Amino acid sequence: MEEILKGIKAGEERAVARAITLIENNPSERERLLQGLYPLARLPYLIGITGPPGSGKSTLSEKLIRAWRARGIRIGVIAVDPSSQSSGGALLGDRIRMGDVAVDQGVFIRSMATRGALGGLNPVVFDTVLLLSAAGYDYILIETVGVGQNEIDIVNLANTTLIVTIPAAGDEIQSLKAGLMEIGDIFVINKADLAGADRMVLTLEQMTALEGATEESWLPPVLKTIATSGEGLPGLIEGIDRHYQYINKYGLLEEKRKVIIKKQLISLLEKRLKERVLEPLIGSAEFKRAISRMLNFEEDPYTLVEKLLQEKGV
Amino acid sequence: MEEILKGIKAGEERAVARAITLIENNPSERERLLQGLYPLARLPYLIGITGPPGSGKSTLSEKLIRAWRARGIRIGVIAVDPSSQSSGGALLGDRIRMGDVAVDQGVFIRSMATRGALGGLNPVVFDTVLLLSAAGYDYILIETVGVGQNEIDIVNLANTTLIVTIPAAGDEIQSLKAGLMEIGDIFVINKADLAGADRMVLTLEQMTALEGATEESWLPPVLKTIATSGEGLPGLIEGIDRHYQYINKYGLLEEKRKVIIKKQLISLLEKRLKERVLEPLIGSAEFKRAISRMLNFEEDPYTLVEKLLQEKGV
Repeated sequence: MEEILKGIKAGEERAVARAITLIENNPSERERLLQGLYPLARLPYLIGITGPPGSGKSTLSEKLIRAWRARGIRIGVIAVDPSSQSSGGALLGDRIRMGDVAVDQGVFIRSMATRGALGGLNPVVFDTVLLLSAAGYDYILIETVGVGQNEIDIVNLANTTLIVTIPAAGDEIQSLKAGLMEIGDIFVINKADLAGADRMVLTLEQMTALEGATEESWLPPVLKTIATSGEGLPGLIEGIDRHYQYINKYGLLEEKRKVIIKKQLISLLEKRLKERVLEPLIGSAEFKRAISRMLNFEEDPYTLVEKLLQEKGV
Repeated sequence: MEEILKGIKAGEERAVARAITLIENNPSERERLLQGLYPLARLPYLIGITGPPGSGKSTLSEKLIRAWRARGIRIGVIAVDPSSQSSGGALLGDRIRMGDVAVDQGVFIRSMATRGALGGLNPVVFDTVLLLSAAGYDYILIETVGVGQNEIDIVNLANTTLIVTIPAAGDEIQSLKAGLMEIGDIFVINKADLAGADRMVLTLEQMTALEGATEESWLPPVLKTIATSGEGLPGLIEGIDRHYQYINKYGLLEEKRKVIIKKQLISLLEKRLKERVLEPLIGSAEFKRAISRMLNFEEDPYTLVEKLLQEKGV
C-alpha cells in the first residue's frame, strides 16, 4: 500500500493501474487506499464528452489529447462502457485506435462500467477521478456513449461537457433537445463537411439561446469540426479554454465539487445505515416475531417497529 | 378516537369514512388509530380488477357487487385514482354510475391516489385495507386503470386479480402479454359480442397455458362477459369462487399477507431510520464540517462517515 501511494504521488502509471484494480475488487483495501490518497488529491478539472456512436467523438478526443499534450498538460481518460452490449465494441475499438496516444506517459486511459452493483453511478468512477487527480493528471476526460441516464449522471460530474453530433435531419435535432440541450456546455457538430451542417448550427444556436442566457451565464457555443482532418480543432480548444476560465471566474469548479461531495457522503451514510442497522434488524429473531405478531393481528406495525428500533438504541 | 373505533367495530360507514380521513391527513392520529384497529382486524380477501379505460370494468364491478350482496357478503371498494390526469375522469364517472350500489349499507366505496408522497404504493391503501377488514367487510375490491407500475403494485396486494379487456387485434394482445399475463388470475373478455372475441379467447388461452401450469398451480381461465346485459356473469362469479377455494386450499391468503407484512415493516423501518438518524445527521454542524474537510482534501469520506456515525452511536 505504501508503495502504491508513493508510486501514485510520483505519477507512475503502473501504480495508478494497480490502485484502480484495488478500488474495483477489494472493498477494504479500497478504503485504506482512499484514506491515503486524500491528502495527495487536488481539485480536478473534469471534461465530459458524449454523443451517439459514429459521431466521431473518439477521434475528436484523440486530437484534443494531442493538442493538450503539446502544452504539457497530463490527461487521465475514463472511458465509460455503455451498459448496452450493442455499442460496447465502439469504445474498445476507439481505445485501440488511440494506441499511440496511450503509450505516452502523460496520458492514462482506463475503461469501466457505468453502473455500480446497487444501481446508480458506479462509485468506482468517483474514486478513480480522485486517484487520477492525486497522480497529477491535470485534465480528466470522461467519455460516454448515448443520451441515457448513465450519460446524464456522468455529465453531472463534469465541469465542462461537450456534446458531439453530426449533421442530421430536423426531427433528429428535436430528439437531441430533450436529453442533452440542458447539459451541454459546448456543442460540436463533427463531420461538418456532410450536408446540412450549417442549418444544424443555426438550429442548435437558436435552441441554446432559448435556454435563456443571462449576463453571467454561459451561452453554449455551437462549433463545427472535421476530426479526421483536424479542421475546427483550434476553435474547439479555444472554446474549452474559455469555458474553463468562465467556471474558474465564478467558482463553479468548487461549487460542483461541493454538490458531489454532499451526494457522496449521503450515499455512504445510507449504505452504512443499511449494513449496520437495517439488515441486521431484518435478519433478527425479533423481526420474525414481529411478522408473526402482525399475521395474528396481535400488534400493529408502528408499535412493533418502535420496539425493534429501541433494541438497537435508535 | 374511542368513538371511531367503536363505530368501526360496529361496521358503521360514517366511522369508517372518518377513520380514512384521519389516515390520510393526520399522521399521529393515524398511528393511534391503527394501533386500536389491529386487534379488530381479520385476514381480508382482496380482489383486484384492472384493465384499460373503456373495457367496462366498472359496470362489471357493479354487477359483481350486486351478486355478492345477494349472498349477504359485505364489500369495501377502493377505487385507485390513476396518476395520469387523462383517465382521471373515468373512475369518478364510474362512482357516480355505481350510485345506487353505493348507498347500500353493505358496500363502502372510497377513491384514493395511487402514489404516496415518497413514491411507491400509497401507504394509505395498506391501512385502508386493514380498516375495512376491521369494519367487517368480507371482500375488498381494488379497482385500477391501466398497466403501469401503479397497477402492478396494487395487483401484488390482491389475492385474486381480474384482468378485463375487450376483443382486440392481434398486436394489441401481444402488448397485453408483456405487462399483465403474469399477474392475472382470471382473464375477462368483456363486450364479448364484439367481433374477434372467440379468437381472442383462444389466443389468451394459449398464452396462459404457456405460462406453464403444474398440477398444483392455477391455470387462469379466460371468460367472456357482456357486463351491460349480465351475460357471462354467473361464470365469472363461479371463477372467482373457484380461485378463492384454490388460494385457501394452499394457504396462499396467509402467504401473501406475510410477504406484504414484511415489506410494510421494512419500509417503516427505513422511514424511521431516515427520520431519526440520516436526516438529523445531514442537518448537523458535523456534516457541514465533513463537507468542508473533504473540499480541502483534509480527510476522506470513509473516515468522516465513520466519525459521523460514531457520534450517533451507530
